[in-house]
Amino acid sequence: MTYNGTTIVVDAMGGDHAPAVVAEGLALALAADADLQVLLVGPEAVVTPLASERCEPVIATEVIGMGEHPAAAVRGKKDSSIVVGCRLVKDGRAGGVFSAGSTGACMAAATLVMGRIPGIARPAIAAVIPAASRPTVLLDVGANADVKADMLVQFARMGAAYARVMLGVTEPSVGLLNIGEEPSKGSALAQEAHELMAASVPGFVGNVEGRDVPAGTVDVIVTDGFTGNVTLKVLEGLASVLFKEMKTALTSTLPNRLAASVVAPAIRELKGRLDPEAYGGAPLLGVNGVCIIGHGSSGAQAIANGIAATARAVRGDLTGTIARAVGDGAGTGA
Amino acid sequence: MTYNGTTIVVDAMGGDHAPAVVAEGLALALAADADLQVLLVGPEAVVTPLASERCEPVIATEVIGMGEHPAAAVRGKKDSSIVVGCRLVKDGRAGGVFSAGSTGACMAAATLVMGRIPGIARPAIAAVIPAASRPTVLLDVGANADVKADMLVQFARMGAAYARVMLGVTEPSVGLLNIGEEPSKGSALAQEAHELMAASVPGFVGNVEGRDVPAGTVDVIVTDGFTGNVTLKVLEGLASVLFKEMKTALTSTLPNRLAASVVAPAIRELKGRLDPEAYGGAPLLGVNGVCIIGHGSSGAQAIANGIAATARAVRGDLTGTIARAVGDGAGTGA
Repeated sequence: MTYNGTTIVVDAMGGDHAPAVVAEGLALALAADADLQVLLVGPEAVVTPLASERCEPVIATEVIGMGEHPAAAVRGKKDSSIVVGCRLVKDGRAGGVFSAGSTGACMAAATLVMGRIPGIARPAIAAVIPAASRPTVLLDVGANADVKADMLVQFARMGAAYARVMLGVTEPSVGLLNIGEEPSKGSALAQEAHELMAASVPGFVGNVEGRDVPAGTVDVIVTDGFTGNVTLKVLEGLASVLFKEMKTALTSTLPNRLAASVVAPAIRELKGRLDPEAYGGAPLLGVNGVCIIGHGSSGAQAIANGIAATARAVRGDLTGTIARAVGDGAGTGA
Repeated sequence: MTYNGTTIVVDAMGGDHAPAVVAEGLALALAADADLQVLLVGPEAVVTPLASERCEPVIATEVIGMGEHPAAAVRGKKDSSIVVGCRLVKDGRAGGVFSAGSTGACMAAATLVMGRIPGIARPAIAAVIPAASRPTVLLDVGANADVKADMLVQFARMGAAYARVMLGVTEPSVGLLNIGEEPSKGSALAQEAHELMAASVPGFVGNVEGRDVPAGTVDVIVTDGFTGNVTLKVLEGLASVLFKEMKTALTSTLPNRLAASVVAPAIRELKGRLDPEAYGGAPLLGVNGVCIIGHGSSGAQAIANGIAATARAVRGDLTGTIARAVGDGAGTGA
């Protein structure tokens, strides 16, 4: 077997419905991309039957469950699918890894095994928000609950690199999530970050507010992992509530049900367009190699999207782009 | 003129469309509540023509605009409508004040003129979120960008008092907004707050996440004013985007337009049910008197709802209920 295409690692055991749904998603991804090679990592009984010309099984005897303590599990289970997968990237056998497993475990494994890009103080998790006027990269959405202002500067540079490579935005606009537009608004952290970002982040447009996230006012929105995670879950929660209530409203009477059958395709299209899973998982930015983490509840198509996104990030040299973007800047001195 | 009903102050100059829309909203509120007395504060030319048996004009020569620096404006403009209004409450001539003016100016005026309830370290702004399964009180939504854990404990007690008085919930459940369910999750602040709240807040159910805000999992959700403000604006922004996109989808073809005309009332009902303005503005909790702040963009009905909410809070002794709730607890030692 030769690797003249793009090679990425897929964690066969990641996700609530692994390995069945991973196998299904992998088949979709391989069918859609003839230049994709995969190293499929997991227990022998799972990965060996899935071997094919473009899918090489790699055996890992252990699995990290969704409930385990991330760092402890990664340190304790050296032969788990996610740790073995990250080692394959570290050893240069693949350009990136995709897993729909525990976010914490993926983060811990990628950081400990692959290491950070030189100069990066803290890796961050990004999410692509399917906003109204354009997709918006929001970060950090959960890797760092407590941050310092200079980390937010690095998040801005990493998010902009991601928007360039993955969304094709040549000169991404970057906003700082805050609770007012003026530089003097917000927490002490936000005020300090505004000053640093205004001085050193290309494309920085100043503060943006909560409503700018779903509106898609800028290409990249920077915040700490606490606010970002709450924001992401508020968005997911409200979208789910609204579509559910809409369905109830549209089926409340017979005339409504008849009318609803006419508009159902348009509503489904809207729901699909606003579905975060279309963007294929959340990248962990700042580690030395591509690492994309799928939602634990991912279905086969979301897994396929995540695998495709990982391949695209490898082909677009996301890691090198981030390294250059952070190297150009002041860094954090960390 | 006698004040044997409930007397509240209305700021004639508060809001983007003041005074016209305030006058209109006031008329609606007076018509709906025969026991309501109002002190209407503003420039003579505005308030004198609106005098009636249950509406006494009080002249204030100055106005604080939406763009002014709140504390400086309140200190500088002693004869502004909001400062005069708060003084009427302080002097016992009214039980509460409603204004749709600048949130910062209302907050500064209420805190400086009316003072804080003894024991309260920091007043907080609450918002009632029209969530799926029940209205949820979210606080702080913007008064305090930086907080300490013991302030969150007071916010919890104040939010619970508000839910009891205004939403009729006998034993409100209280959650701490965090980025994971386990007590060990989240920022250092959230971890410390969880420990304090578990030990001292009646009805505390532990951490809740972003998705619980629109779902309405608990009666009261406590967070810092930065996260709370972002959350509120994300909710408002996404609801606005979704209803707008829904409208576009439903009118994209002729069959859709015909079907949409059938389901339009159900969608309007849903939109109205999820409209935050139905709850009549955001209360500033912890000051020594009722103070409810309407959205700057309030229409007449939202103004009327805000006036009605202010009267209800006065009648339900919101201020006394908060004082007792905080007095029962550990307080902050501040």
